[in-house]
Amino acid sequence: MESLKSSYEKLMEKAKSLVIFQSAESIVHWDMETMMPPKAINLRSQQLALLSMIEHRMSTDPEIGRLLEEILHSPHYEALSQIQRRNVYLIKKQYDEQTKLPEELVAALAKQRAITTDIWKKAKAAKNFQMFKPELDKLVDLVKKAAEILMEVKQTKTPYDALIDIFEPKMTAEEITKVFNELREGLVVLLRKCEASPKKPDVSILKRRVPVDVQRKIAKELAKAVDYDVESNMAGGRIDETEHPFTTGYYDDVRITTHYYEDNFASSIFSILHEAGHAMYEQNLNPEWIYQPVGTACSSGFHESQSRFVENIVGRSREFWSCFLPKLKAITGDVLSDVNLDTFVHAVNEVKPSKIRVEADEVTYCLHIIIRFNIERDLFAEKIKVEELPEIWNQSYKDYLGLTIENDSEGVMQDTHWASGLFGYFPSYALGNIYSGQILSQLEKELAEWREQIGRGNFRLVKSWLVNNVHKYGNLYDPADLIKLITGTELNVTPYLKYLEGKYSKLYGF
Amino acid sequence: MESLKSSYEKLMEKAKSLVIFQSAESIVHWDMETMMPPKAINLRSQQLALLSMIEHRMSTDPEIGRLLEEILHSPHYEALSQIQRRNVYLIKKQYDEQTKLPEELVAALAKQRAITTDIWKKAKAAKNFQMFKPELDKLVDLVKKAAEILMEVKQTKTPYDALIDIFEPKMTAEEITKVFNELREGLVVLLRKCEASPKKPDVSILKRRVPVDVQRKIAKELAKAVDYDVESNMAGGRIDETEHPFTTGYYDDVRITTHYYEDNFASSIFSILHEAGHAMYEQNLNPEWIYQPVGTACSSGFHESQSRFVENIVGRSREFWSCFLPKLKAITGDVLSDVNLDTFVHAVNEVKPSKIRVEADEVTYCLHIIIRFNIERDLFAEKIKVEELPEIWNQSYKDYLGLTIENDSEGVMQDTHWASGLFGYFPSYALGNIYSGQILSQLEKELAEWREQIGRGNFRLVKSWLVNNVHKYGNLYDPADLIKLITGTELNVTPYLKYLEGKYSKLYGF
Repeated sequence: MESLKSSYEKLMEKAKSLVIFQSAESIVHWDMETMMPPKAINLRSQQLALLSMIEHRMSTDPEIGRLLEEILHSPHYEALSQIQRRNVYLIKKQYDEQTKLPEELVAALAKQRAITTDIWKKAKAAKNFQMFKPELDKLVDLVKKAAEILMEVKQTKTPYDALIDIFEPKMTAEEITKVFNELREGLVVLLRKCEASPKKPDVSILKRRVPVDVQRKIAKELAKAVDYDVESNMAGGRIDETEHPFTTGYYDDVRITTHYYEDNFASSIFSILHEAGHAMYEQNLNPEWIYQPVGTACSSGFHESQSRFVENIVGRSREFWSCFLPKLKAITGDVLSDVNLDTFVHAVNEVKPSKIRVEADEVTYCLHIIIRFNIERDLFAEKIKVEELPEIWNQSYKDYLGLTIENDSEGVMQDTHWASGLFGYFPSYALGNIYSGQILSQLEKELAEWREQIGRGNFRLVKSWLVNNVHKYGNLYDPADLIKLITGTELNVTPYLKYLEGKYSKLYGF
Repeated sequence: MESLKSSYEKLMEKAKSLVIFQSAESIVHWDMETMMPPKAINLRSQQLALLSMIEHRMSTDPEIGRLLEEILHSPHYEALSQIQRRNVYLIKKQYDEQTKLPEELVAALAKQRAITTDIWKKAKAAKNFQMFKPELDKLVDLVKKAAEILMEVKQTKTPYDALIDIFEPKMTAEEITKVFNELREGLVVLLRKCEASPKKPDVSILKRRVPVDVQRKIAKELAKAVDYDVESNMAGGRIDETEHPFTTGYYDDVRITTHYYEDNFASSIFSILHEAGHAMYEQNLNPEWIYQPVGTACSSGFHESQSRFVENIVGRSREFWSCFLPKLKAITGDVLSDVNLDTFVHAVNEVKPSKIRVEADEVTYCLHIIIRFNIERDLFAEKIKVEELPEIWNQSYKDYLGLTIENDSEGVMQDTHWASGLFGYFPSYALGNIYSGQILSQLEKELAEWREQIGRGNFRLVKSWLVNNVHKYGNLYDPADLIKLITGTELNVTPYLKYLEGKYSKLYGF
């Protein structure tokens, strides 16, 4: 018993060092995107490569393997608490995967990722998929190799399932295919209804010019509105400016970024709300679990459920704007003085098929994801080849969204994910939406007056419900178990579709 | 020969990783001072402790010792170039020192430094040296232990010499005592002359209120004036805001900070010029030597010579202000419109004994340093005890500057150095001034029209002279050799005293 305790404590010391190291690494990454003098890029690449090599060594330290063996073979193992066993499980999972991937493969992947990302930028600018193809081919081959190794460690049915498992533990392409088919059906019906409606929003109001300085003031007010504290001495947050918005950080040091476009002020508004949703999750993990593996988010899908909850379910609601529009008007002077609440709410909820995922509305967004998921699944099942991607992509956009893709920059090369070797991640976005619908349905049962509260500018009750029902569980459960625990139901598209139906039938009058 | 080459290359790979790691660490430090949300302090302390432990392991890696042995015992050793041999020498010096200090002592020192710094802040606020004394006592004992070990490794005559050697290689307390005595004599004569003069500057103009936003604009203009590039895409610099100004960074990523006081605009002006002098040195080390030990600054004294050159010799010169005062007036609106050049230049060069080192003028500054040096030297020679510090301090300020210290916060507890275990550093400040005088004297021989150039707003010629005569040598020589190489003379106070005499006789009319 004493020896089990001592091994567990030693193991947790190792885990703690690793997470502290990773949090320091994330500061160096963040600095690169936000603060670094441009000239320093070469030095910074070398710093990041070195840090990631050290991180790899720390996470594959044979001492971790030895401690895991001792703990798992201890006759007293069952005496560990649920939390302790989960920590051991998560460390073992990570350790097994990291140690099974040969160092040369890890290095080759890192190198090929950098090369492919670099050529992607150039090919995208040149609208030339042929430039991109050979390097993407090499990268996909390397990812396939890694996926095959991970498949054995993780005991998944297919290599692609092993990739999905990195982001959404225990989820499978089979299950995703099933729910995505249902989701697609529902979304297409909704899309048709919106398109058929004679009611159309006036989106020209969103093009009115708002200077960056003014948008920075809006950002501060928004942060207050969703209780993302960036100003007090007790603050654990920041808002900075980058090309692409993101969230990074851990517990007491969580940072979000945004991009201000003078001719599209709504872009930063919704990116701040989105990232604040991510940030809130990280800041409100159980404080007792800091430095432990359970003290991390459940999955990428769950992370996305929180960001999209704040961005869309709260942030694009009539109630939110009934309270925030007057503030927005006050900050922007006379830019929006003639705009009424209905006009504004409909404008920020326009439903219209678009070629670019990151600009998509709530109804069409998941269709973009489903297209990407199908392609990834078939690519890793060797049903399609890299060279066929543009054709399949363009045909899918025709079939799903009725759009004609003019060139691959607005098509298959629009996202950075594949160029950086990120396969298996895309489904998380749609899973996040599905979870957010289920979570909303539960919230409505337990906090019936939530919309009223938002309308009064009180986000605190909703936030504390999310903290107590989602955030605080950290990584104690796999996502399938967590959604069951929170909502009593399995992964299920009905609540999300119901939420969309309710919202858009009012906006479009059907 | 091949084996020597291979060992040397392996050694340089180790050295490169270490310097890259340190540069990443410095970003995490910088972030703590400038950007970090306050709540993150506990997480950050743990990150920094972990990084410094990893750095210690890297720098004491036994493989380094093995490679050094191979290289130094190679029959072909003499075939290495001067630069290669210097790299080997610097790595060996660092390695021997790091490995000889027992890990427990390093850890105990780190811990005691943190404790003593913490209690120093409280004791300083409470003006109570008795609070500070017991912890400072413990810290001094630990530093003495380390100094005794380093004395053996470095083969210095005394433990204090071993501490000096960390910052000013091969310099000794004996030599410093000699030059500081000469320096004191000269400074006291000058101080008497200034004090006896009926001409007094009107320093009230420096109290005029300049809002922080306006001071930020001055900062940008100043950076341009001394060619510290912070704006272009090719920039390698930044200016941020911290409690105490500092410079950090390496080659293409060098960052300075300042503090804006609305009722003391000159404070940020001269701190920016000072830090820009440090930054310029780091940015202009020989680019071929990046990641090598020779690609670092020569010594703390040399670093200080560059910062004080830019701050004082250039930045407080009549020529600089003949060009910059009109710009300052334009930026500050009507705040300084009635101030003429002579009034302004005399105000920023007021000579007046003061209790606080960081506020001291050029004439009295070194007297503050000499007081601290004498105390450190005698403390480590066991001639005085920690408990006697306030008494000796106060008596010295009476003797050197004619001042009565009212309490220990404005006396012996004013600086953070001793509280953080930094003994042996203070002499660097005065050595820097002495070097700056010698360097100036050489500059005047080779670039006679330098003052004219500064008066025309052209700092480039002076800068490029400094780059080619100081910066580019990096750490190829010990400071005694470098000053000889640059000026043809040994360490020598005459040029600095002559520079001061020339400048202040004009300002004060003697």
